[in-house]
Amino acid sequence: MRLAVVGAGAVGRSVVDLADEYGHEVVAVADSSSAVVADGTGDRDPGVDADAVVARKAERGIVGDADPADALAADYDALVEATPTTLGDAEPGFSHVTTALERDRHAVLANKGPVAERFDDLRAAVADSEGEVRFEATVGGAIPAVSTVEDIEPSHVTAVRGVLNGTANFILTRMAAEGLDYEHVLAEAQDLGVAEADPAFDVDGTDAALKCVILANVLSFGAADDPADAREFTLDDAEVEGIRDVPGSALRLAAEDGQTVRLIGEATGELVRVAPRLVPENGTLAVSGTQNIVQIETSHAGRLNISGRGAGGPETASAVLGDVGRLE
Amino acid sequence: MRLAVVGAGAVGRSVVDLADEYGHEVVAVADSSSAVVADGTGDRDPGVDADAVVARKAERGIVGDADPADALAADYDALVEATPTTLGDAEPGFSHVTTALERDRHAVLANKGPVAERFDDLRAAVADSEGEVRFEATVGGAIPAVSTVEDIEPSHVTAVRGVLNGTANFILTRMAAEGLDYEHVLAEAQDLGVAEADPAFDVDGTDAALKCVILANVLSFGAADDPADAREFTLDDAEVEGIRDVPGSALRLAAEDGQTVRLIGEATGELVRVAPRLVPENGTLAVSGTQNIVQIETSHAGRLNISGRGAGGPETASAVLGDVGRLE
Repeated sequence: MRLAVVGAGAVGRSVVDLADEYGHEVVAVADSSSAVVADGTGDRDPGVDADAVVARKAERGIVGDADPADALAADYDALVEATPTTLGDAEPGFSHVTTALERDRHAVLANKGPVAERFDDLRAAVADSEGEVRFEATVGGAIPAVSTVEDIEPSHVTAVRGVLNGTANFILTRMAAEGLDYEHVLAEAQDLGVAEADPAFDVDGTDAALKCVILANVLSFGAADDPADAREFTLDDAEVEGIRDVPGSALRLAAEDGQTVRLIGEATGELVRVAPRLVPENGTLAVSGTQNIVQIETSHAGRLNISGRGAGGPETASAVLGDVGRLE
Repeated sequence: MRLAVVGAGAVGRSVVDLADEYGHEVVAVADSSSAVVADGTGDRDPGVDADAVVARKAERGIVGDADPADALAADYDALVEATPTTLGDAEPGFSHVTTALERDRHAVLANKGPVAERFDDLRAAVADSEGEVRFEATVGGAIPAVSTVEDIEPSHVTAVRGVLNGTANFILTRMAAEGLDYEHVLAEAQDLGVAEADPAFDVDGTDAALKCVILANVLSFGAADDPADAREFTLDDAEVEGIRDVPGSALRLAAEDGQTVRLIGEATGELVRVAPRLVPENGTLAVSGTQNIVQIETSHAGRLNISGRGAGGPETASAVLGDVGRLE
């Protein structure tokens, strides 16, 4: 497939880098201020030169000399939306996706905003288009949470829960292992680049909640006979508690009882909840460090556990390119 | 889709029972000696009456008054092959599947024989047909091992390993937990119905090896640019060691070191191996009881772990019906 990649952060750059290996061709790349569009005259490959894009971004902070709008207007089969997640109107990501759909092209999202905050609008745009929307990369990085729920079929999934934020999990894992307090481990995580300078999005549970909101939308709309009967979830519908107030003493007490604390997100077609919970220390949910895990409760096949890397450029790009493969 | 279900054991009966809930219609069911074919004149539902089939099988040992050949000739979209796994020529399962393919119908297998013993013949039959073949249910029950490898794409999977036989895993788990020897725990497992009267297929590693052979075929043929270059695996290519000779003392020694023993199967595009291995006692591979786990090593997204119920009628039927959903 011919791909236009919008967003040139770690995920967008990895998609550009790996696309060829998955048998796809990148015909346009845009970041917020610049773009490059293949002119179709390349010697051997009519797509953009992936190495050159990545090098320009690193050296000059731009991906090319064209305008971002040119990338949106390029001749692609699927648009990859990998700009940063925004809340509320989920712009500019939402408009990027609807531009693709209006042109009857597909869209594959790594950006959580449009699926978490405007699922019903997105669904309506898909209904009017020949194009499809996929968004495996928005939940759990390399973990195939969305497609597995789709394969089982949402009406046969009663709940999805799991550890969906690697930063918060890293902090809780280190607090328990070293007997340290939150502030101390956060500083360490920031030094290691595992936590952002402003860690609020991760440690307050927002990121995990957005992923659970997306899963709740998949469950609710997927199980409804008529989409008009489905309940749309947004971040406002989620009950969210982060890990800032988990004291080191709570982890020590838990350990005495063979337990530990994890930031657990839960989604059904009825509710979204994220909060620190006690879980067995050697149990399935107690993944370590930046690992993520998703537990899918099914009607007929018991519980399915899927764990793996929940973030990272190549990991998330693999989920994007898996989605592109499913569109073919 | 209209389904013909061949094989009326636990899996076949569960497919008949659950098909309607997944939006499909069973138009024919056969066991080895009898069949029922819908006459299309049912009052509300033109398919066969699932409850009546299951009741006749339980009460009279037959599924209906027709001949098995009538089910194979019925007007179905997909044939579900759920007869017992046979080795070598993999008959009669192989012929059931090719009959469907020759009629340009799809086939979904729960029977491991044709995919483990005659993958290349099967592939050739698919190449000449409008129908497709899917076989998620042959590996790991409810665990979506095959479809996840397909989504990642076989050329980006370097190896698949895991615990793929619940009976052997139950025995090793109990031996470690209770400090008992193999023979004692085997007798207990037979009493509980977890092990067969003749447990050879499970405890000698044959069942796990067949699953690994199937995964090796998926990896080998999926990664080859030209199928002529792919290596075909059969059970004869697998290096297999079972659990009969694992002494209780080995588990006690392992436990002193925080380890335990699991029957681990491994598949790449180059080899298939099954043998008892030391694994960390609280590690990911040390699933308990009849649970199964599959670890998928990827080129770009690290390691993915998927655990869940590796056997059971409804669990395996869910995998069959997930495959049917993917055919649409």
